Amino acid sequence: MNDLSAVVEEHVAWLSGIGADPTGGTTRLLYDENWQIAQNGLKAKFEAIGLTTSFDAVGNLFGRIEGSHYPMETIMTGSHVDTVVNGGALDGQFGILASYLAVKYLTEKYGQPLRSMEVISMAEEEGSRFPYAFWGSKNIWGIADKADVLEAADAAGIKFVDAMRDAGFDFKDENEGLRKDIKAFVEIHIEQGSVLEKTGKQVGVVNSIVGQKRYNITLEGESNHAGTTPMGYRKDTVYAMSKMINEAIDKAHHHGDPLVLTFGHVEVQPNTVNVVPGHTVFTMDCRHTDATELAAFTKEIEADMKATANKMGIKIEIDNWMNEAPTPMSQEIVNVLETACTEAGLNFQVMHSGAGHDSQIFAVNVPTAMLFVPSIGGISHNPAEATKTEDLVEGLKALIASIHKLAYED
Amino acid sequence: MNDLSAVVEEHVAWLSGIGADPTGGTTRLLYDENWQIAQNGLKAKFEAIGLTTSFDAVGNLFGRIEGSHYPMETIMTGSHVDTVVNGGALDGQFGILASYLAVKYLTEKYGQPLRSMEVISMAEEEGSRFPYAFWGSKNIWGIADKADVLEAADAAGIKFVDAMRDAGFDFKDENEGLRKDIKAFVEIHIEQGSVLEKTGKQVGVVNSIVGQKRYNITLEGESNHAGTTPMGYRKDTVYAMSKMINEAIDKAHHHGDPLVLTFGHVEVQPNTVNVVPGHTVFTMDCRHTDATELAAFTKEIEADMKATANKMGIKIEIDNWMNEAPTPMSQEIVNVLETACTEAGLNFQVMHSGAGHDSQIFAVNVPTAMLFVPSIGGISHNPAEATKTEDLVEGLKALIASIHKLAYED
Repeated sequence: MNDLSAVVEEHVAWLSGIGADPTGGTTRLLYDENWQIAQNGLKAKFEAIGLTTSFDAVGNLFGRIEGSHYPMETIMTGSHVDTVVNGGALDGQFGILASYLAVKYLTEKYGQPLRSMEVISMAEEEGSRFPYAFWGSKNIWGIADKADVLEAADAAGIKFVDAMRDAGFDFKDENEGLRKDIKAFVEIHIEQGSVLEKTGKQVGVVNSIVGQKRYNITLEGESNHAGTTPMGYRKDTVYAMSKMINEAIDKAHHHGDPLVLTFGHVEVQPNTVNVVPGHTVFTMDCRHTDATELAAFTKEIEADMKATANKMGIKIEIDNWMNEAPTPMSQEIVNVLETACTEAGLNFQVMHSGAGHDSQIFAVNVPTAMLFVPSIGGISHNPAEATKTEDLVEGLKALIASIHKLAYED
Repeated sequence: MNDLSAVVEEHVAWLSGIGADPTGGTTRLLYDENWQIAQNGLKAKFEAIGLTTSFDAVGNLFGRIEGSHYPMETIMTGSHVDTVVNGGALDGQFGILASYLAVKYLTEKYGQPLRSMEVISMAEEEGSRFPYAFWGSKNIWGIADKADVLEAADAAGIKFVDAMRDAGFDFKDENEGLRKDIKAFVEIHIEQGSVLEKTGKQVGVVNSIVGQKRYNITLEGESNHAGTTPMGYRKDTVYAMSKMINEAIDKAHHHGDPLVLTFGHVEVQPNTVNVVPGHTVFTMDCRHTDATELAAFTKEIEADMKATANKMGIKIEIDNWMNEAPTPMSQEIVNVLETACTEAGLNFQVMHSGAGHDSQIFAVNVPTAMLFVPSIGGISHNPAEATKTEDLVEGLKALIASIHKLAYED
């Protein structure tokens, strides 16, 4: 596998170059011109190595080779082809390319597999053009609702439906049944965090994708003159918020990994140096791989916040507007990936994913697991998104070894 | 003094009606048409009760009656005629009207005073039209710098100099000496806080105006993915800010009155629910009547903030952009006011002012003290600014008794 470095670099440069954005990075959004060029280019590549290609109704691209012994058992691997605006060269794209290169490598070296292998280039995951994410995987598993996109339009006012039809695609036939042949789904992706970089590992075997809860917290106190209002008379919402955030994040640290807690957005009124702030809204984002722990922790924080508000005479409203359950990966597939990595002598660790991926849609339906490669500085969704080529190659090796086990071993 | 209620109400309605703003309250800004109408209306009123009137170069209005025994000893009383945008009916205005009514009452009842009495309607205090406050009192005491307003313009682009000249005024002759005849200055003003309301007093004798220090604090951490960045890897500036504010305000409460501490303005970047916030700027406003305590407390808070930032690996910049020293009132005049209130049987207390007033400019130059009347709900700089008429009358009685002591007693 000595020349894999050059092959990987060349393929990443090719795909990320389709939609190169003059303002930085790659912008290739669902159904746009570059998206069409990318899908068609991938289709040609898949066909050139002997795969049978097809698009489904919405534009997910499949490249398939039949299994010799178990053709109705499909080992699927791939990721999404769309990017965010000014995205990096690897998010989604590396997963498709590595899947393609793995299948190419395996068929060249071992010929036809026992089970069918399928590379997938999914239409959409990021939700960057229209306010809808996971359009590709949700269509595959029959949970994309036409009604949710029927009125959607992009920033330029182009309607979702028109963009889709102009690209030659349409809604799925709702009576079409779900696929029953997929025996396993494996997705390789950049980590988009800095865990592997900090632990010095080159590959991650993902055993779980976090669940997340998001909140808006609104505090109503009293705006008062910062000079003439003694401390004892105040209902200061920034003070209340500070107590809440300080206590909550202290508890999150104490609770320990994999729990994460973020207060990313703060809005203060009147937001003036010399007025005690009477109105503050802030957000909370909490994630954990375990639904029970996530629920228990957020319940405790909600109670703490209410107690603090009550003690300070401040009105509080806690609006929990997002609830996504954690998605455990298939332990069976995780075991296969671990064994494959061990046998291939790779420098890997088992870990969870703190971000969402297509695999969480698959995992509910078919045995699924993921592989991660490190992200330099944890940076993603940014032109600076990067992974060392040697780490991309180690990830590809892990995927090859994993797909080999799943598709070639009896 | 039974009919003082009606007199006070009528005068407040008259003056606050000049500049009544269709969007609420009173908007009467330095040198604008309503400002000119108000100053000329006051001049006519002053003259109608036998006062000799004059404007100084910049538009401060004086109404004077000579003393019979000590004409070169002037007891001055008054406040500022300008309002904020959508201001209330009392801020500044009540001080001028009460001073005028006190002098009217005293001359009608007791005739010519031993010392000269002067009512002053100062041109400007709020800094609401141009970015310059205390234009009136600073010109009286020779500390207004021409250079600071020469290029200033209002929101409509009208230059300070043009507005001033169009109203018939101009810069003061810099060679003109300061007045040496003012023996005492007394200003009555609404409290703009809720201390008197909470303590149930109708009059405050102000013995000090707080000093204040204002800061911008800038925290630089790292913006990271809220899902993929474990708590231990974060440099979260909202968490750091929360620790700092929580600790600082806890300490302010522990320190006790008259210290006040406010974090009124917060700006977070990127300010997104799912990104660990890597950049936060917030303000701090700290006030105290004692310069040494103010300096010691803010020094301690600055050290705390730096220690917290260092512990969390976050860069901090603390910019102290305002330093105003506390201004003690004249103990001699405070004693006169206290005695006058006691003798008049008023329900009063001695207190400090948490807001700035023209008196702080006078106090550096001549013996000065202030009287406060309660503000309902502590509300000011707002159309809802109000004081019970009975409290306005008690304030007027306190001013009458005080000026009587100063101008009529030997």
